[in-house]
Amino acid sequence: MGKEAHRFLEVERNAIREIGFHEERALAAESLFSLSDEFMGSRGYFEEGYSGKSLRGSYFNGVYDYAREKTPNAYKGIVERTHYMVNALDYWKIRLLADGERLDLGKVRFSEFERSLSFEDGLYSRSFLWTLGNGKKLRVLIERILDYENPHEARQRVWLESDSPVEIDLSFLLDFDLPQWGKESQFHMWRKDDSFPAIRAKTLFTDILLGGAMEAVPSLPLKGERVEGRKEVGTRYRFLLEGKASFERRACSLHSRESGKRDLLARALAELSERKDRTFEDVREGNRLFLNRLEERGRITIEGDEEDLQGIRYCMFMLNTTYSGYSDRDNVPAKGLTGEAYSGHTFWDSETFCLPYFLFTNPKAAESLILFRIHTLKEAKERARMLDCRGACYPVATLNGEEGCALWQHASLQFQASTGTAYALYHHYNVTKDDSLLLKGGMEVLLEISRFLLDRGQWDQERKRFGYYAVMGPDEFKMMVNHDSYTNLMAKFTFELTLDFFEMMRKRHRSLQRLLKREGFGEKFLEEIREAADAMLIPFDPETLLYEQNEGFFSLPHIDVGSIPESDFPLYSHWSYDRIYRGDMIKQPAVLMHLFLFLSTTRKEVLERNYDYYEPRCIHESSLSPSVHSILASALGREEEALRLYGFASRLDLDDWNGNTGEGLHLTSIAAAWNTIVYGFGGFRSDGRELSLAPYLPRKWKSYSFRLLVDGKRLETRVEERKVVLLALDGPVDIVLYGEKRHVEGTYEAPIPDRA
Amino acid sequence: MGKEAHRFLEVERNAIREIGFHEERALAAESLFSLSDEFMGSRGYFEEGYSGKSLRGSYFNGVYDYAREKTPNAYKGIVERTHYMVNALDYWKIRLLADGERLDLGKVRFSEFERSLSFEDGLYSRSFLWTLGNGKKLRVLIERILDYENPHEARQRVWLESDSPVEIDLSFLLDFDLPQWGKESQFHMWRKDDSFPAIRAKTLFTDILLGGAMEAVPSLPLKGERVEGRKEVGTRYRFLLEGKASFERRACSLHSRESGKRDLLARALAELSERKDRTFEDVREGNRLFLNRLEERGRITIEGDEEDLQGIRYCMFMLNTTYSGYSDRDNVPAKGLTGEAYSGHTFWDSETFCLPYFLFTNPKAAESLILFRIHTLKEAKERARMLDCRGACYPVATLNGEEGCALWQHASLQFQASTGTAYALYHHYNVTKDDSLLLKGGMEVLLEISRFLLDRGQWDQERKRFGYYAVMGPDEFKMMVNHDSYTNLMAKFTFELTLDFFEMMRKRHRSLQRLLKREGFGEKFLEEIREAADAMLIPFDPETLLYEQNEGFFSLPHIDVGSIPESDFPLYSHWSYDRIYRGDMIKQPAVLMHLFLFLSTTRKEVLERNYDYYEPRCIHESSLSPSVHSILASALGREEEALRLYGFASRLDLDDWNGNTGEGLHLTSIAAAWNTIVYGFGGFRSDGRELSLAPYLPRKWKSYSFRLLVDGKRLETRVEERKVVLLALDGPVDIVLYGEKRHVEGTYEAPIPDRA
Repeated sequence: MGKEAHRFLEVERNAIREIGFHEERALAAESLFSLSDEFMGSRGYFEEGYSGKSLRGSYFNGVYDYAREKTPNAYKGIVERTHYMVNALDYWKIRLLADGERLDLGKVRFSEFERSLSFEDGLYSRSFLWTLGNGKKLRVLIERILDYENPHEARQRVWLESDSPVEIDLSFLLDFDLPQWGKESQFHMWRKDDSFPAIRAKTLFTDILLGGAMEAVPSLPLKGERVEGRKEVGTRYRFLLEGKASFERRACSLHSRESGKRDLLARALAELSERKDRTFEDVREGNRLFLNRLEERGRITIEGDEEDLQGIRYCMFMLNTTYSGYSDRDNVPAKGLTGEAYSGHTFWDSETFCLPYFLFTNPKAAESLILFRIHTLKEAKERARMLDCRGACYPVATLNGEEGCALWQHASLQFQASTGTAYALYHHYNVTKDDSLLLKGGMEVLLEISRFLLDRGQWDQERKRFGYYAVMGPDEFKMMVNHDSYTNLMAKFTFELTLDFFEMMRKRHRSLQRLLKREGFGEKFLEEIREAADAMLIPFDPETLLYEQNEGFFSLPHIDVGSIPESDFPLYSHWSYDRIYRGDMIKQPAVLMHLFLFLSTTRKEVLERNYDYYEPRCIHESSLSPSVHSILASALGREEEALRLYGFASRLDLDDWNGNTGEGLHLTSIAAAWNTIVYGFGGFRSDGRELSLAPYLPRKWKSYSFRLLVDGKRLETRVEERKVVLLALDGPVDIVLYGEKRHVEGTYEAPIPDRA
Repeated sequence: MGKEAHRFLEVERNAIREIGFHEERALAAESLFSLSDEFMGSRGYFEEGYSGKSLRGSYFNGVYDYAREKTPNAYKGIVERTHYMVNALDYWKIRLLADGERLDLGKVRFSEFERSLSFEDGLYSRSFLWTLGNGKKLRVLIERILDYENPHEARQRVWLESDSPVEIDLSFLLDFDLPQWGKESQFHMWRKDDSFPAIRAKTLFTDILLGGAMEAVPSLPLKGERVEGRKEVGTRYRFLLEGKASFERRACSLHSRESGKRDLLARALAELSERKDRTFEDVREGNRLFLNRLEERGRITIEGDEEDLQGIRYCMFMLNTTYSGYSDRDNVPAKGLTGEAYSGHTFWDSETFCLPYFLFTNPKAAESLILFRIHTLKEAKERARMLDCRGACYPVATLNGEEGCALWQHASLQFQASTGTAYALYHHYNVTKDDSLLLKGGMEVLLEISRFLLDRGQWDQERKRFGYYAVMGPDEFKMMVNHDSYTNLMAKFTFELTLDFFEMMRKRHRSLQRLLKREGFGEKFLEEIREAADAMLIPFDPETLLYEQNEGFFSLPHIDVGSIPESDFPLYSHWSYDRIYRGDMIKQPAVLMHLFLFLSTTRKEVLERNYDYYEPRCIHESSLSPSVHSILASALGREEEALRLYGFASRLDLDDWNGNTGEGLHLTSIAAAWNTIVYGFGGFRSDGRELSLAPYLPRKWKSYSFRLLVDGKRLETRVEERKVVLLALDGPVDIVLYGEKRHVEGTYEAPIPDRA
């Protein structure tokens, strides 16, 4: 895989901690020490500025803009102009001079550097001892926290201490001058409030207003001065430090997509003043409660390997703070709010990799995720029209519902987001038996997706077989193939699901039936998708039990993945672009991905044959690949392989396995790490008729446990050396354990069967 | 095909003529009235400027620049920055005011508009009667001519005549302010001579200097004033016109790629003064001789259809003036020097469609064409390395030898330019039996192409079959396919040719053998390409006699080409880009293209079966498609179809069949029109052991004739109602006629056999 671990953080249960500054990992650390409260998020950059490698990134969910440049050769259906999350407003920025010397850890002498981010309250603190040019020493501690209960607000404390008197010049700023893609800011029309430090600006093309107001309060009786630049505003304190001093800054940011355009700054100021009495410690306490509430429902423990434990706890902290259902207009960006890579876009990962975590720990967030797709049906229908089809085609990459991927070969040829949305509707209903999302638009979404798939698919010349031509399945190393297994299988699934749900819903809700008929979803349409589903070409060989990934795959020239030198990775940067498409090497699971989605009904022999065929051909160039393989390896009883891949999945960013954590965290891969424990070691299945468990204990661990919400009630599964213990924490729960239905009241114990 | 004729020119034998201005065809006329002398060329725009639709384009062969913008997502092997022929220097520009009113045919009142371009001397003249706002009438006649003997020079005459006295203000300018792609000029650092009207500038990135000097001499004793702008310089005359006046302007342009950078303007001025005594009429006479010389060797006559005759005569005039072998650093740009479309690039058309015309009418030009590829071997080797291969990969589109196509799906997946170059080396040697081009680098080119093809090709998993994966053959509606027939067949041909030529050349030239061995072309390499050639997978079904265009083609969904509405064409603009790849519709011949290249050895049944299968699936969206089909239809005795397609090929631009003549002439399609007569109706074959003829007379014509150089001697073939007459104009010639060897001395007559 061409990957190696770059460990530089301490291994702890409740935090990540860096002792001593690791300059060569500065960018990765910026990503790892990111904070988010779903409304906004920012990287863990140094508040005072840093002349070394840094991406000063601060983002707001849903605040995006269009690219300045149009896509060249934008033939019909090709995205003319992509869109991206903008690097927006720096509400952490300080400027610190001591005896006239400017603080910049890229230039000054310092020691005793330490920083940590707590999983318990989300506090990010950083301290070091600064030795001035004149020999005086200044201890600096800076703390940041976001307020999960009031996500508009950011809090910061700056502590200074010196034994010798030092002239301090310290400014707290709100700054819009953040670079977009290393170039100038994507904002214009900056406006400031005359009396308060408050500033707003507008995005260039989408006309979104973003504004912030702040207040910085000193511990000493000091008078601040207003400071102002073209794109920034703030408060400056100049004083002689003798001993200690501290400052607390509060900043409140609002944007017009949430709050409308009127009086944005005035409202930010009003919010600030409303929460005047809420102390920094109040925020910490609130955050602790917030995180506890989520943890209560989803806690994971591991005894026996502190690295594995820290890995999963970091993942869950990041997931919980990045997405908790704050707004059903947001989705989970592939990099969260931690970097510009992937443009802040959401991929099909959110339905396939993130949804399970939320489904079983935070149902409101799960619903929000699906509502995002329901709310963007209009854009998906428009996208289908761009592709000369009826129905709805969900974008490969998006922030606002429009297709944001300017690589047409992905945007026009991949339908994973559409079939993934169908799968999410299925998964949600299958687990909750609650049809309210279907009523709120989900049924229409499903029908429109089917309409698209019907139109995009084609019959062969004899009209015997239906399937998809010129597509790219999940394996992005096969660009334009016919009869991609995953695509055909998922289209068949979507058609059949549509028929089933339609049948169910029209019986339950007569009015819905009339509505849908009016939209053209009558008997004829249903008949057409039934025909297409029945005739779907599934390239499966009953003798070898192998699915052929796509037509012709088995006769492609063989590439020995193991013989590719480490230095060739990532292949996109080192191989001629066309070369990656010319063999049987695959980038990420495709056939196996389908088996993963339908694990509860997949025969073990089929899984085994396909795993043994496809895994050796996979280079795992997608960060989501190892987790799927880990789960399948668990299902096949291949413990060592499962564990090895889990280690990679859960510490992908902490140990910067791919060497690209600096660009931002792999947020959806973080969600997949959770799947690896629950679906992998825990043998959990949620795609079949009943929820089921079949845990085993990797030898390396002493025990582990995880919690799931089942019918709204917490079920804890503890896996120990020889036994599994189920605890129904909120009342009795029904679940299948090792193939047997169990009614769990209180505690239920069972031995772990031998794995043959 | 979604095409229709838009006739607006008079039908004449020796000229094109427009009577009355056809505003709606203004752009097409600009292309059609283009002039070129190979060194430079310009569109037939109005010298005085025109506020209607216009592309003021003036180009110099080899004067190009890199794009301002980089290609986004330029993965390895993808062209980072394309290059294009720049819109350069307007040496025709005038500014004309009469009684203070500015001439602009988009605004003023005028009548009696007429313009013509003579095939006999290349004179483009335009006249009209301008009615001023004050009612006075001014007759204007403007003539342009390029000097084929002195290609740096352009001549222009302006004639004015009025019955009433009119205040004239007339400037002659050299202007660098020509828009590139509708945006600003691609030049900078304009410099002017202080005393003479002379100006030079530099391209932005390639640092090519281009300069021009001019002189405008009035018929009346007038004194000119110098006029100057930032990017222009010239001479202005102000006077009271009573009766007649005329002006003659001469302009001389030079560029540093041909003449070096030193003293460019001084040398342009020196050239101007050297030719001071050469009159406009001298130039006309020189041009007449130049064109006659070429016509003597390649004349075509048609009796019985004046449109067909004009079509082919226009084509030959344009071909002869666009490319006559002036420099072997030039190639034939797909649009000649008549527009910006295709960026002034050359495609594989020049070897496959243009070469035959030159081979049999202008051997020096044929040699130059091939030398262009030999001179750019270095760039082709560099290109192969970008694609992770050894050897040489010739660019899909180029001006300077580098790949200029920023659409990676074409640039990285098409090898037609490489195999086409191999074919050209074969064709040239086959016809001339002269191995000097092989000695001058051709052999090395061939070996390097084979080295590339060996590296790019792949063995199947059992190492039984060799072939190409992820390629785009000539049919650009199949983007990324495996075992494309044309590609595999041409690679096999190239390997075998390489082996044959190597065997021949190493016997003849011992030193060459040593040189090539040093470059790595030893026995092992030869053995490898022999193996690959023998194992090449050729998808041919001996039962149906059909070649499968590529693996899987026969099972693609069927698209009924006839049912596509006219308004959908061109498909690239009206269909979602991915949609064109999803069926058995083809854009241009692929299997048939191969059969065309090897017509002398293609069995008629094979041709017939494949023609009947593929032609109905072809939409002829390439302008080169009809001519190939016409030739094949002739070979199959399908006269009507052949004639219909010929009409399209020969008058493609004259009648603006594709509606895009305004972007520039289809220069290589123009060459293909000649093929249609000679190879089609004339049944000429030059790809086999012997040259052969098998003419027939389309019923619509009374007779036709064409001339070919055979062994350097002219052979005229006259085809009449029942007989064919061969005339050996320069001495005896051996040729096969209707399958029989004939030794033609003086005149040879034979009856035309029945076509069964």
